[in-house]
Amino acid sequence: MKDKIMKESIDLFDSKGFSKTTIQDIVDNIGVTKGTFYYYFESKQELLRDIHLSFIENLLHQQEEIINDKNLNNKEKLYKLVYIIISEIKTSGKSARVFNREIRHLEKDHIDNVNSKRREFRLNFQKVIDEGIREGEFRNDLRSDIVTFAILGMVNRSYSWYNPDGEMSEDEIVNLYMELILNGLTK
Amino acid sequence: MKDKIMKESIDLFDSKGFSKTTIQDIVDNIGVTKGTFYYYFESKQELLRDIHLSFIENLLHQQEEIINDKNLNNKEKLYKLVYIIISEIKTSGKSARVFNREIRHLEKDHIDNVNSKRREFRLNFQKVIDEGIREGEFRNDLRSDIVTFAILGMVNRSYSWYNPDGEMSEDEIVNLYMELILNGLTK
Repeated sequence: MKDKIMKESIDLFDSKGFSKTTIQDIVDNIGVTKGTFYYYFESKQELLRDIHLSFIENLLHQQEEIINDKNLNNKEKLYKLVYIIISEIKTSGKSARVFNREIRHLEKDHIDNVNSKRREFRLNFQKVIDEGIREGEFRNDLRSDIVTFAILGMVNRSYSWYNPDGEMSEDEIVNLYMELILNGLTK
Repeated sequence: MKDKIMKESIDLFDSKGFSKTTIQDIVDNIGVTKGTFYYYFESKQELLRDIHLSFIENLLHQQEEIINDKNLNNKEKLYKLVYIIISEIKTSGKSARVFNREIRHLEKDHIDNVNSKRREFRLNFQKVIDEGIREGEFRNDLRSDIVTFAILGMVNRSYSWYNPDGEMSEDEIVNLYMELILNGLTK
């Protein structure tokens, strides 16, 4: 039931926005009472936090496997790190949109844990770039922290325009991003 | 007075968010009555639309000058197009954040004009990339529409982390972005 509430809420937050969705809307859509909601969540804030945590923890878990894979060089790791973001947009577009848009509505008491995991996600990216610089795969004259912000801005933002049912596949998007990131636009 | 209301509202939307800011909050902060507010705006929606329009129209105006400058090649134009976004974050950080975050809260009746101008802004970018491809400055094997989304995602997102009073200047940020965009990360 907890999963069902989260799934239904993601649908509503995606279509109506977090602010305009009430707990009543959520329970009405599932056909349960508010009592059921409050059995699993203290508040709409706690629900939003759990949605964020579930999304980022899944990504962190996938990152960890990639980073620890000794058969991959850093370019390959970077490719896979970008891939899991696009793939998440494909399989869980609504979650990705809620994750990116509604973080703004998480209040002080509920945001700390989410923010520290988002930070961890970003620093994992940066670690691969730093390692690639050390091993001579990547140029060493660009600050890795800003490069990380740049790549994450580019890739994360795809949730706002990428249509997984459209003409471009995940692979094509990721390949284009990686070409741009690794080799640039200059002829 | 209209400008004053818009300026004060941007401050409040930036700190509290659009949803949680009431018209009462806005007029209290300026020390006027609700009547004054309604003399200039029909609703909070209309105010938010005007804030968005004012932000994007200013950027479109700057874009136009760059695109029509016959002394610039397309790389130089691209540099300047990126520069005005970062510069806007520096000089109007609050507006940039409200512009990027609160578009979500603009409702049907008020969003069309804003969306068409945002689209125009994006297509101006794409025009420079297409022109650069035609003139052999940029490689021709990457779709210009996706490249545009990628660059705009990267650059626009800076509002969320770039601190203009921090250790990096506008020039340094733009130079790093352009190095990455034009030449890539590969050593």
